[in-house]
Order: sequence, then structure tokens, then C-alpha cells
Amino acid sequence: MRVALGIEYDGSRFCGWQSQPSKEAVQDHLQVALAQMAQHEVKVSAAGRTDAGVHALSQVAHFDTTTSRPQNAWVRGVNAFLPAGVRVLWASEVDPEFHARFSAERRSYQYVLQVSPVAPAVLSGRVGWYHRPLDIDAMRKAASYLLGEHDFSAFRASECQAKTPIKHLIQADIRQFGNVVLFEFTASAFLHHMVRNLVGSLVYVGKGEHPPEWMQVLLLQKDRRLAAPTFMPDGLYLTGVHYDPHWQLPVCRRTVPLG
Amino acid sequence: MRVALGIEYDGSRFCGWQSQPSKEAVQDHLQVALAQMAQHEVKVSAAGRTDAGVHALSQVAHFDTTTSRPQNAWVRGVNAFLPAGVRVLWASEVDPEFHARFSAERRSYQYVLQVSPVAPAVLSGRVGWYHRPLDIDAMRKAASYLLGEHDFSAFRASECQAKTPIKHLIQADIRQFGNVVLFEFTASAFLHHMVRNLVGSLVYVGKGEHPPEWMQVLLLQKDRRLAAPTFMPDGLYLTGVHYDPHWQLPVCRRTVPLG
Repeated sequence: MRVALGIEYDGSRFCGWQSQPSKEAVQDHLQVALAQMAQHEVKVSAAGRTDAGVHALSQVAHFDTTTSRPQNAWVRGVNAFLPAGVRVLWASEVDPEFHARFSAERRSYQYVLQVSPVAPAVLSGRVGWYHRPLDIDAMRKAASYLLGEHDFSAFRASECQAKTPIKHLIQADIRQFGNVVLFEFTASAFLHHMVRNLVGSLVYVGKGEHPPEWMQVLLLQKDRRLAAPTFMPDGLYLTGVHYDPHWQLPVCRRTVPLG
Repeated sequence: MRVALGIEYDGSRFCGWQSQPSKEAVQDHLQVALAQMAQHEVKVSAAGRTDAGVHALSQVAHFDTTTSRPQNAWVRGVNAFLPAGVRVLWASEVDPEFHARFSAERRSYQYVLQVSPVAPAVLSGRVGWYHRPLDIDAMRKAASYLLGEHDFSAFRASECQAKTPIKHLIQADIRQFGNVVLFEFTASAFLHHMVRNLVGSLVYVGKGEHPPEWMQVLLLQKDRRLAAPTFMPDGLYLTGVHYDPHWQLPVCRRTVPLG
């Protein structure tokens, strides 16, 4: 039997999604907790393998089990075995053909950037931070060049294992709430570090280092070294994974509670 | 020279405001950082001595120094010596008669309560949590009985050192934002654990364990043992300290970014 899970986690407490020798990754904690409930070893696959420090409000994963349990056991029961920074939100038996990663059609991320002279304390590790005012209109114009199908090599980490740097970005919104700038990106899939690299270059535009058209130049040059450095992971949230309705999954999207 | 400070901190990372033998209190970290900048020992006094796990968006404190530094040194300079969970927001030279605690006329606290079947992961330690729906109207009615001058012995911790249990509560608001219930309390001063004890009893009313009038009965009975248990510190924020304008302090109020 294949079971899909919705998962929330605080990335600042773990060394990323993917299993590590230290056993301190989200996947490790989840596999240990699920194995306790299933009474056999469990391997979990996720829609997006988030980096260390990156959070998820709505990660989706699946695992196979021979153990029949009420759905609530995979939620409340498993949560009782998990550390406070990870929670299973829902569990649902799915078609054995479903694959959390390969069946996903779109992923959405939000990046929360606090703009203030002093760094955040209460939200340290949960928001990105920039110390000077940003030109939001310039950033919005820069972001508009990213929409559509492009070669995103300028925003791709060297370790990226994707087959192709060509991705289709269908959302690149920037909104402001008080001293917070909220970025929202949706694409079929993202390259490694792509969102953090996009945010880094958009902040360069926002602080006036380059005009909005620079974003278009970067796309055409396809050279990572010409774009801005990777922005800190602290403000990045995986907020949604979209699947075809025929899989009959619960709603797999939760957004940062702003606005 | 006396200097007043505005301070933000994440209470989940420290064992409260007040200096501890372990040196892991907010006051300890602040005194070490200020001493590095002042080049002499520094003693800091705060408006409210928050418990372990309780946060501050706007704590106010003062210290005396013989060292003359530009105001920015007491902010950016000191922040460079502080751990990520504490930040000085502003610094301002004040009249030597000013005392962060004794000159304070009112304190405001907010309590952020997430109501959801599954506990928070990303915001664990930063919000309180209750797993079942609450009757907000009943809680509001219950809170209205608290307004004005009362003997708050029913909501006073046994270790409380206040001279009198009689306090004047001038605000007891309850608002709802999605699955978050936001409590806001303002009073001349609060007894030890008073806000967490009030929230605990209001949640009892919200879940239907007692009618709203129970709050009035508790005030009249003045018996801590008859009220609900102390609610978890995780969702409690010191949001403001009010001083007479003649002290010429910066704005000492910051609220939880909801609504």
C-alpha cells in the first residue's frame, strides 16, 4: 500500500530534506518515526529535496507499507515520534502509481525577506534579511523577465543534477507587507538553488546595483558567475506541490500567513 | 550617562530575561555584549522580567556607562557581539532619573495561539497551540470581566513577588486571523505568570468547560487552584512598554505581524 503525506518543517533545525550520515535530515527523522508505526523499515520520497535551512509549509512525500493502519495513525501517531520541528499534516492512501516527485506537475515557493536596519531576532532563521530599503517596482519589473520558458543556467548551482537548465516559470510575484517583501515563484520544477539565486539577483536590482533589464541579460548570458550570490536559505518556504486531480490528494498548498 | 535600549528576543533560545548562574539569560548576553562596547562592567535593568520561553518584540532596558559612544555603537556595535536570538533595536541617551522598570506606566503583551489539529512545526516555540476549535465569542465575553481594577490572585503564580495582587487591566482583546487567536492585554503592571494564567482560563471557557461568567467567579474567589493551569510560554510576546512622553523615548511598541 502506498501512502502520501503532507509535511511541515522548520528547516533551521535540520540539515536539509535528504538523508544524511548524521541522520539529522528531515527524511531521516520521518523514516525513523514511520518505521516505528509501520513496524518495518520505511523509505520516504519527497516532491522537493529542500536544502539545509529551507522550510516547508507543504512538502509532499510518499512511502510504501505492508502495515494497515487508520489514516490518523500516520498523522497523530507518527507526530508523537517526531521532533517538534517536523509535523505530518495529513496522510492519504494513494494509487501505487503515484510518485511524490515524478507525479508533481508544479512546485511553489515563497521567500520572506525582512527589510530593516536591524536583523530579525524572534524570526531569525525563519526570514531572510536585508538592511537597506529596496525598490520594489524595479524588482517587479526585473521579475517579469523571468516568466515563461528560459534557460536558467545563470541561476543554477554547480552541483545541480537536473537533466536540463530549461524550466518554465509561471509565477514570479513580489508583494510588500510593511517591512516584509514576499516573493512567490511557481514552476514545473526548479534547479538547485534556483529560487535563492533569483532572490539574490532581484535584491541586487532592488538596491540599485543593476537596472531591471539586467535580469534579461543574465538569462541570455547563461553564466552563473555573472549573477548575484546565492541568498541565505532562512526565508525560503516550499509552499505547494501541484498534482493532477485524478490522484485525489488533499490540498497541497499552504502559504506564509501574510496579507 | 544613562542609556535606554529597545530590545527584541526569541525567548525559546534563552532561560528568561533575568541573569542566571548558567549565564544563558537574555540579560547575561546583553551585559557581556554591552561590557565589550563600554570597556567596563555593565548592569542592565529591564521593564519586564520575562520568563523562559517568553519573547519580546519591544523590551525596554537601561544601563549606566562612563564611556561615550555614538548611539549607533550601542545598536550595530553591540548587535555584532550578541547571539542571533537577541537584537538591540534602538539606543537613546536618557535622563539619569529614568528607570526602565519603575518609570514604566503600562505594559502590553500579545499571546498568539494557533488552533489546529496538528501542532505547529515552523512556528513551534513561537506560538501557543490548542488542538480543538474554540468559541471566540464566549472567550471575548469572559475577557470583558477582567477589565478594570481587580484582585488577580486567581491568576498569580505562587512565586510572585509583587507587593499587591490588585492590578488595573485596561485592555483584554481577543481577535481571530484564520486559525490564529490573538490575545492582547495591557495593564499598569502584571503579576508573575498572569498573562499565561489568564490565557489558560480563557481557553477553558473557549472549549466549553466553563461559561464566560466563570472568569468573574475566579476573580471573586481569589484562589489560584480554582483557575486553569498556566498556559505554555511559547506564544507570549512582550509587545510594548509605555512611558510618559517627557522621557522622550522612541516608540516602544511593536506588534505581532498579524492582520
